[in-house]
Amino acid sequence: MITELKEIKKKGARCARTEEKMAYWLWYPGDFEIYHALLQNFSREERGFDWPAFWYQADCRRNVRFSREYELEKETEFTVYSHSQGYVTINGRKRLFGEKLTCGPGRVRVEIFAGRLDALPAVFVEGERICSGAGWEAWDFTGETQEAGWSARYCKKEQDPAVWEYESVRVKPVSETEKNGGILYDFGRELTAVVHLGAREASVFPLTLCYGESEAEALDTEYCYYSQTLHAPEEPVRKRAFRYVFVPGKRAGELEAEAEHFYVDIPVKADFKSKDRQLEQIWQVCEETFRLCSGVFFIDGIKRDRWIWSGDALQSYLVNFYLMFDEEINKRTILGLRGDDPVRQHINTIVDYSMYWIISLDWHYQRTGDLDFVRMTYPKAVSMMEFLEKQLDENGFLVGRPGDWIFIDWAEMDKGGPLCAEQMLLAVCYRTMEKLERLATGEAAGGYAGKAEALLEKIERFYWLEERQAYIDCFSTGKNSVTRHANIFAVFFGLVGRERAEAIYTHVLANDRVPQITTPYFKFYELEVLCRLGRLAEVLERMKAYWGAILQEDTGAVWEEYDPAQTGPERYAMYGDRYGKSLCHAWGASPIYLLGRYFMGVAGTAVADETFEVCPHPELLEPFCAAVPVKNGLVRLNSDGKTLTVCADRDGGVLRYGGVEYVLQAGREVRVEMQRPESV
Amino acid sequence: MITELKEIKKKGARCARTEEKMAYWLWYPGDFEIYHALLQNFSREERGFDWPAFWYQADCRRNVRFSREYELEKETEFTVYSHSQGYVTINGRKRLFGEKLTCGPGRVRVEIFAGRLDALPAVFVEGERICSGAGWEAWDFTGETQEAGWSARYCKKEQDPAVWEYESVRVKPVSETEKNGGILYDFGRELTAVVHLGAREASVFPLTLCYGESEAEALDTEYCYYSQTLHAPEEPVRKRAFRYVFVPGKRAGELEAEAEHFYVDIPVKADFKSKDRQLEQIWQVCEETFRLCSGVFFIDGIKRDRWIWSGDALQSYLVNFYLMFDEEINKRTILGLRGDDPVRQHINTIVDYSMYWIISLDWHYQRTGDLDFVRMTYPKAVSMMEFLEKQLDENGFLVGRPGDWIFIDWAEMDKGGPLCAEQMLLAVCYRTMEKLERLATGEAAGGYAGKAEALLEKIERFYWLEERQAYIDCFSTGKNSVTRHANIFAVFFGLVGRERAEAIYTHVLANDRVPQITTPYFKFYELEVLCRLGRLAEVLERMKAYWGAILQEDTGAVWEEYDPAQTGPERYAMYGDRYGKSLCHAWGASPIYLLGRYFMGVAGTAVADETFEVCPHPELLEPFCAAVPVKNGLVRLNSDGKTLTVCADRDGGVLRYGGVEYVLQAGREVRVEMQRPESV
Repeated sequence: MITELKEIKKKGARCARTEEKMAYWLWYPGDFEIYHALLQNFSREERGFDWPAFWYQADCRRNVRFSREYELEKETEFTVYSHSQGYVTINGRKRLFGEKLTCGPGRVRVEIFAGRLDALPAVFVEGERICSGAGWEAWDFTGETQEAGWSARYCKKEQDPAVWEYESVRVKPVSETEKNGGILYDFGRELTAVVHLGAREASVFPLTLCYGESEAEALDTEYCYYSQTLHAPEEPVRKRAFRYVFVPGKRAGELEAEAEHFYVDIPVKADFKSKDRQLEQIWQVCEETFRLCSGVFFIDGIKRDRWIWSGDALQSYLVNFYLMFDEEINKRTILGLRGDDPVRQHINTIVDYSMYWIISLDWHYQRTGDLDFVRMTYPKAVSMMEFLEKQLDENGFLVGRPGDWIFIDWAEMDKGGPLCAEQMLLAVCYRTMEKLERLATGEAAGGYAGKAEALLEKIERFYWLEERQAYIDCFSTGKNSVTRHANIFAVFFGLVGRERAEAIYTHVLANDRVPQITTPYFKFYELEVLCRLGRLAEVLERMKAYWGAILQEDTGAVWEEYDPAQTGPERYAMYGDRYGKSLCHAWGASPIYLLGRYFMGVAGTAVADETFEVCPHPELLEPFCAAVPVKNGLVRLNSDGKTLTVCADRDGGVLRYGGVEYVLQAGREVRVEMQRPESV
Repeated sequence: MITELKEIKKKGARCARTEEKMAYWLWYPGDFEIYHALLQNFSREERGFDWPAFWYQADCRRNVRFSREYELEKETEFTVYSHSQGYVTINGRKRLFGEKLTCGPGRVRVEIFAGRLDALPAVFVEGERICSGAGWEAWDFTGETQEAGWSARYCKKEQDPAVWEYESVRVKPVSETEKNGGILYDFGRELTAVVHLGAREASVFPLTLCYGESEAEALDTEYCYYSQTLHAPEEPVRKRAFRYVFVPGKRAGELEAEAEHFYVDIPVKADFKSKDRQLEQIWQVCEETFRLCSGVFFIDGIKRDRWIWSGDALQSYLVNFYLMFDEEINKRTILGLRGDDPVRQHINTIVDYSMYWIISLDWHYQRTGDLDFVRMTYPKAVSMMEFLEKQLDENGFLVGRPGDWIFIDWAEMDKGGPLCAEQMLLAVCYRTMEKLERLATGEAAGGYAGKAEALLEKIERFYWLEERQAYIDCFSTGKNSVTRHANIFAVFFGLVGRERAEAIYTHVLANDRVPQITTPYFKFYELEVLCRLGRLAEVLERMKAYWGAILQEDTGAVWEEYDPAQTGPERYAMYGDRYGKSLCHAWGASPIYLLGRYFMGVAGTAVADETFEVCPHPELLEPFCAAVPVKNGLVRLNSDGKTLTVCADRDGGVLRYGGVEYVLQAGREVRVEMQRPESV
């Protein structure tokens, strides 16, 4: 059931590179992502109404000029296509879209003016010599021209970059059951799909489709999250997320239902098979969950919210590198989240989420080495940083303003003043900005490094409580409240040394008097930190307990939150809604990252994984075979319980195991004897 | 022919106020105008291609929350309608659009969330107690909530504020002639219309419509500005501006053509009839021209550019007060021109046009007393002023930046450094801001008055050339070039006293060695200043000469520019295009303003014309009867060549004539003996 998704036929949405010259649709850089993020954040639905995002949602520019100059040896022909209003000029002379145009020889400047009232303005230039793609500039009539944006996905003149081209696959239900006076279809797994009905007789209409991520939800015709009543066969059915569909009042045989599942085909590079069936299944369910939540953007959940949240996305970037290593979805998500200048409010209204956005630029660069992307996004990082610095208090601490959401986590926390976790994120942002500035400008004139050090010193002074060996949430209330969050951040973001980290482990993480993390969202950070501190056995145990319990539910994906103590219908409830819980939530996929990063031990050690290391802990696991991507490569690990073989398909890696370092040459297997767990 | 337009049946697009409670569509304040300005500035067409404006064109917000609180004595029902995605909450509880909702008694907070991807988000609330209109707030999820925007034009749930509802009238051609192997239709006047064809036989297709503001243009099938080939009767014909339509290759009787003229019904309040038939006709052609160019916004010309230009609009505001006194079109134009914050570039890319925009706020307030509008626009005036002040040089003079257009006029002028005319506008802006600040905030903390005085002192020092008794264009080049423009501004904007103004008249305006003003655009300012200086006889002579010559062309409207020396087809050419000249251009309507303001002498003397004066010069004119609007009133003047009668339909006015002041009581005629021209 879970692996089925892998078998989906890839329809090859991306344009195959051929010997012929390719042309690509052009748009203003970043506007494609901004426009599609608008569509994404307006796609949420609940009980018959649409739920557009509740923040200022940017839109693309309405008019753009595209231009390029050529030195032509001879006359050449080209044609400009567009869904926009506008025209072409050749050396200033106006010409029409859609007509074959002739120019040259000599110096030729082509300008294309495109305006579109209701969607993304884009143009496509087809010609042997003059064709659209890299090298074209875009101008929005203010400031400097920019390199035009384009994507390998849009290379045919019949396309429209305002429309995302999803791949799709037809899925038949795995079962059809008469129940509660109707038919219950179980599609065997979560889908984002349109239901197609092959009614035996037209008289079957009207009928109502009741959807559910759980069987209970689908059968609850009154309270299920989505339902739709159809009056005629030709009535369009909306795309929704579900596993079950219940049609009340109908009997088996009256209808035939099929689902057309829509997805973005991002190939999975990683793999994990294990003699530990539970762990393998955890990995598979995580993969399924993560792929379902990886569409045009990383979204939080397929049923709810269907929105792009910066906090959820930050974790998805990490999982992505260990599952698909797809750079494009990272970039789309980063650009879509940020919108455009000026910064009008924090990303998703959340102060921490704005900072995650800055941090993500560095994370993306570290693994991909995409300097162009750093240069493109750096100005927006600067304006975001300026926006943040406008809300510093007299100590230089970041505080919320009216309308700001100081989030960190859905946990009880002393938020009576500047919050420690926010200051830590700010310090990481300063450090990040220092790196980005050097990369984008070659200089370090912004003084970010100094700001980071000064802030870290103040964090130490104001928030570290020596007698508790912990960072407190907040100093201004005098409550000295200790939660795990800031302490986890201190280790996760490398703000403290080994000794301090160990103290935090002992006095906070291993201290049951400090309230437990309750959300899988923050559990990601906690488990990450435990791994970092070498507590892999503990992490494995917790992972198997929590995700193993979710597996028992057999809904085919990882839930937004899971409490094994809840066994009745209340386990589907959240946010005061009886089916409010998302049963397919991206942040549940962290085992993929934890296994790849810490158990397989694969990590880049230079930008773009130019060099990388494999520091595995096979001794903690049952026999397995795994594949973990690095940039432009794949590392395969095999353990039979006695020996470990490691093989990378590219150079640059080293295997570190048992105190020995082995160079990994492309295609050459390295075999080592496994240690005993307790000796590592 | 010309007066025909007045007979057009008014369809009553505005909602009639009835005893019942009215509801109005709501939007984010200013967004209606921004969205329709986008549509307007994307509506230009030329020879088969669309020509979206070449500046950054703002769009409306994509999602808005509307809200209002009620204290309900009893239960009440209401329904929310919208073309947007979204939902309603009643005290936090989510409800659907389009359904009858019940709430109360007690305190009830209604919130409506509306998101629309491709047009203006708007909502309509229908209910006895709870209904949309004044008192509702709008929030774009950043900053403060604002009073929601609404218009008396949108008061029915079947409407969509994203669609402007034009009035229309069917117009039959006044003649149909076989010519050049085709049929030429003359509609007798300029129209903005869709051509409807009643073909006798379907076999008449395909056929081509060639449009012309002049007969020559329509007959020039190759180079006419607009043409469209139709292949079938049902093919939609685009709305275009024309007077003539030529259908090549067809014969009379094969076709029947009718035009559906679309317009915005803004009642004309002024009138002018005279024994001087030429002057009366000038007035009528100006009225026709101005009405054609007064649509959703004041546009420059109906064929070209169909764009909203701040410089053209500034003059239109003045004409408007003397023709229609329609406050709504002023406000729409002011809001549509400005777009949204942040200021990304100058309005229409022109530095002077940004300053005209600031100035227009004061002008509008002076005549209307609309303090709400000042409060609404003041923040955008502040940000515009800040934008301007970012480009001051070391002397505090305004200079252009790359991409800025320092325009003033299409004239030879020394633009080698800071331009005198621009500094004068800046000084006027400072003065305007001082007034606006007091009105909007009750304070004068911005220091604008001081800035104005300091700048005026510097203008005097750097630009006034005592030996020429004139302001020079530019001081930094050492050329000491004198043109009329800055000198006209000095008088027009009241920056100099009477004595200096007279010196300017003698040494610049009456000095033939100073190059003549060549554009009707700037001629407006020149004639205005001549009037101000009491040179009415000269103005009358020039007016009759220039506009009288245009009348001879008998195209039914005032041209963008007119040179009587041109008699061949070259007179239709402009901007290097043989039919590039607009033959119906708003700025040609200035005689309406000049006659009303100076010859009839009607002017407000307090805010909102609370008091007004009538200082007429009937002795310069042949017998006439005229009506000139003031706020909430109309002043009628009648001259039989010997006596003048003046009557206002409201109180507040005084008639000043022959050195005597007469109080104008509502409805009471005042009759005075007319002076001899030379004695006035």
